[in-house]
Amino acid sequence: MTISMSDITKLRETCGAGMMDCKKALEEASGDFEKAIEVLRKKGAATAAKRAERDAKEGVIVSYLHNGRIGALLELNSETDFVAKNEQFQMLAQELVMHVAAAAPEYVSPEDVPAEIVAKEREIEEAQLKDSGKPQEVVEKILEGKIQKFYSQVCLTKQSFVKNPDITIEDLINEKTASIGEKLAVRRFVRYELGK
Amino acid sequence: MTISMSDITKLRETCGAGMMDCKKALEEASGDFEKAIEVLRKKGAATAAKRAERDAKEGVIVSYLHNGRIGALLELNSETDFVAKNEQFQMLAQELVMHVAAAAPEYVSPEDVPAEIVAKEREIEEAQLKDSGKPQEVVEKILEGKIQKFYSQVCLTKQSFVKNPDITIEDLINEKTASIGEKLAVRRFVRYELGK
Repeated sequence: MTISMSDITKLRETCGAGMMDCKKALEEASGDFEKAIEVLRKKGAATAAKRAERDAKEGVIVSYLHNGRIGALLELNSETDFVAKNEQFQMLAQELVMHVAAAAPEYVSPEDVPAEIVAKEREIEEAQLKDSGKPQEVVEKILEGKIQKFYSQVCLTKQSFVKNPDITIEDLINEKTASIGEKLAVRRFVRYELGK
Repeated sequence: MTISMSDITKLRETCGAGMMDCKKALEEASGDFEKAIEVLRKKGAATAAKRAERDAKEGVIVSYLHNGRIGALLELNSETDFVAKNEQFQMLAQELVMHVAAAAPEYVSPEDVPAEIVAKEREIEEAQLKDSGKPQEVVEKILEGKIQKFYSQVCLTKQSFVKNPDITIEDLINEKTASIGEKLAVRRFVRYELGK
């Protein structure tokens, strides 16, 4: 088993252990990175309990509270720290977190919806159409529309913007991306409602 | 299969469907509540896509932001709305969310730590003690201490309060519970750190 220099360096940066320890741990773990961290920890050579996930992401974290009964937290990313400090960017983050509090999305975008949830929705809609007597291709079209509608209910990017229902959140973000000139993306959000 | 009246009523409250529809759905689902909701939805009789989880919990949701790079959201519950509006209660919630931002706990209390995580910690600590030559009962004592230490690192209630390290968050909550005279509990929290 040959261990690459880049893996050793990466492990060293993650754990703070010495080069030789990292090399040996990787060999013992047959190159499995997570396992190598464990090997190092067992030997007491790793200083950090957790892998330091140092991403280069910039942006801002914002929050919004409504009467102490609804709260939302959201991370909006930009490519540079310069844009993160831009007023338009900060205002966009604020609009988004308020939207989350009001519209209660469950996922950032359709890719984040688990496949089994989409399948279940499809199944439920299909059962309702079963006795409609419509041809299969028409049923398929209707189903596709229903799934898109489902996304527009549960996905932040596909929801209509509460302050301007003519556009979606995706439209709003694209608009700001164009005017700010840098890729902007909601990384994550969470919404709490008292007792729910 | 006999369906109880209370199940029918509960299903009706959850879905907004009629009594007879609820009864039939429960029969079809052999009494399985979740399945009955699905049956109703397939028939188009359920008006709510989601089960309305109406808990009687009171309390407050608070947030704390640090430089737009760290954000925390926390729900503190009380038994009554009266206490939720109490200034001492609100201040406690604020202290707790600031603590979360600073100390980065991962779970509310030891019961929330998944068993496999505790087992993994134990295994790692055990491997370090393997060649110590200490008797098994001493090793067990040390391990128990290590697990308690682990909890004090990752569980909010077991952490030392950042503003007064002489007490734990549990102590702080118990103190306030005694002076306010009502059961208080952190229901959940979340902490975001930019790019992490």
